[in-house]
Amino acid sequence: MKTYRKKNFPVEMIRRYLEPGPIVLVSSHWKNENNIMTMGWHTVMEFSPSRIGCFITSANYSFELIRKSRECVINIPTADLVNEVVGIGNCSGSEVDKFQKFKLTAEPADKVKAPLIKECYANFECKVTDTSLLRKYSFFILEVVKAHVPGSPKYPTTLHYRGDGVFMISGKSVSYRRKFKPENL
Amino acid sequence: MKTYRKKNFPVEMIRRYLEPGPIVLVSSHWKNENNIMTMGWHTVMEFSPSRIGCFITSANYSFELIRKSRECVINIPTADLVNEVVGIGNCSGSEVDKFQKFKLTAEPADKVKAPLIKECYANFECKVTDTSLLRKYSFFILEVVKAHVPGSPKYPTTLHYRGDGVFMISGKSVSYRRKFKPENL
Repeated sequence: MKTYRKKNFPVEMIRRYLEPGPIVLVSSHWKNENNIMTMGWHTVMEFSPSRIGCFITSANYSFELIRKSRECVINIPTADLVNEVVGIGNCSGSEVDKFQKFKLTAEPADKVKAPLIKECYANFECKVTDTSLLRKYSFFILEVVKAHVPGSPKYPTTLHYRGDGVFMISGKSVSYRRKFKPENL
Repeated sequence: MKTYRKKNFPVEMIRRYLEPGPIVLVSSHWKNENNIMTMGWHTVMEFSPSRIGCFITSANYSFELIRKSRECVINIPTADLVNEVVGIGNCSGSEVDKFQKFKLTAEPADKVKAPLIKECYANFECKVTDTSLLRKYSFFILEVVKAHVPGSPKYPTTLHYRGDGVFMISGKSVSYRRKFKPENL
């Protein structure tokens, strides 16, 4: 599998990768256990602090790992990882070690104990900052505390889930920068 | 501009269009005024009720229209509407009538007073169901009460914002349905 040479990336700029709406892999750690889940229901909520909201229910084995550790990593898989993305979403961490099963590499993060998935394009280390919406909405509020992104390619080819087993694959990027007011960029 | 022959669409299935993360146009109505804003920070939060969460700040002229009326319509523009999407995001409803300025057609909705944008691929009529997260997170909780979607094309070509004036244009859709457990589709 392809790997990337990643650098520290400004956390307030991660909307570049999350706002287009890719499916992501969420890695977590609690006690001696790592897990990974596939997640499609997330949104950017603020630039600084770099806030993300995401929907994860207690039906996911990762739910308790993230709730108890108050940490996770959001990893951006590229389209070539589609079999891993689907596989990870169709088995449970209660039964398998997903890093082992899918031959993915757990790399140590800097600010959280949850591991980075080395084979993913980018990794965003997150702290859970608010669990008060879990009961009503299964909604975690996260803050990205460190981001790892490669210098190249600037934009990854990502998977965007439509439900029913269908993914949209991201297409080309086009700039309309000259049509924006500077304060709106 | 292209228009679509739309039909009633099951509200619990709108994730097909929103989960991939397109930029959307939000139309609103309050007293004798209609407005439109461009929005990129939103997520599906539940199938049934068909729940959406979205980030809209009071810096947007639409904020008060949506807050007071407790309604809006989420419209999905296709990539050919990129100039309208950028233009709408770079002027204010406090100064211009955006329907008039961008030659868009306000069609009556069925269950809300906010208008549908006829030229958009799909229209989701929404009620605001929870405003308790506005103060802390500028986050509206919406319920889709009626959805209008054309029979064809099945998947629209959409715009996905990366910030900095750059849009990703959605690419092809591929099915991995056979690799899913039925309960996970």
